[in-house]
Amino acid sequence: MSKRKPLKKDPCPVARALDVVGDRWSLLIVRDAFDGISRFGAFQKNLNVARNILSDRLSRLVADGIFAVQPASDGTSYPEYVLTEKGRDLFAVVVTLRQWGEGYLFEAGEAHSHLRVADGSTSVAEVRVRGADGRALLPQETRVEKVAPTT
Amino acid sequence: MSKRKPLKKDPCPVARALDVVGDRWSLLIVRDAFDGISRFGAFQKNLNVARNILSDRLSRLVADGIFAVQPASDGTSYPEYVLTEKGRDLFAVVVTLRQWGEGYLFEAGEAHSHLRVADGSTSVAEVRVRGADGRALLPQETRVEKVAPTT
Repeated sequence: MSKRKPLKKDPCPVARALDVVGDRWSLLIVRDAFDGISRFGAFQKNLNVARNILSDRLSRLVADGIFAVQPASDGTSYPEYVLTEKGRDLFAVVVTLRQWGEGYLFEAGEAHSHLRVADGSTSVAEVRVRGADGRALLPQETRVEKVAPTT
Repeated sequence: MSKRKPLKKDPCPVARALDVVGDRWSLLIVRDAFDGISRFGAFQKNLNVARNILSDRLSRLVADGIFAVQPASDGTSYPEYVLTEKGRDLFAVVVTLRQWGEGYLFEAGEAHSHLRVADGSTSVAEVRVRGADGRALLPQETRVEKVAPTT
């Protein structure tokens, strides 16, 4: 992270997003939070990450408004890291990474984790980029345009 | 990247995906490729990244099958880096990051880039995680389950 060049003023939203969550630990911490983890020790155990790295990433994620720190819900002195709305809205990012990894990075029959719908009423569909009319869009059907400032 | 711990054998597809594209340069290179960039010099100019970092990331992306190296299409000696199907399938990842960044990391009225449908027939919808029945799913409506190996 020492060589990271700030992208906070970049006009590209992809660059700004990666400035905030563009290292794998940050998104793995967010993934764990979706799985119900909220305490430092539990993140550390699940991620098998050095304490100083975890501490640094959690602090950044709090500073960036992705997690809020709350008093322990069980009366102990351990604070809980809870996703904010901004953090919860990373769900689609985590799921698209999951689906891409599941599709390309496993051998046939290899053990893996899989996202399912909790009540079993349906399965999770493949996330696709779609038009407002519902049609799936290919990359070459889209263009990036500049939007000028309005103030 | 020196401290990166290999997640290649991790049973979680999110972890494996981030092992491959979990640094911001890799996904910014992929973003640029979606915008039509294919040459080392053009990536370097657009990303304003050190040559050694760009060279390292491009080599990894080729090794991981996200880019293929092709002879120059115009007869010059500059090879072209072209997204494979595996690479093109990162489109939804890049777009979800874009939409999240656009929603949370810009002031009102600030200049930014925006993805549109090239032929103007419709707009790009917000990417959502949906069930096979089309309903948008909240994180708490889903569960991660372990899938045992079948071989």
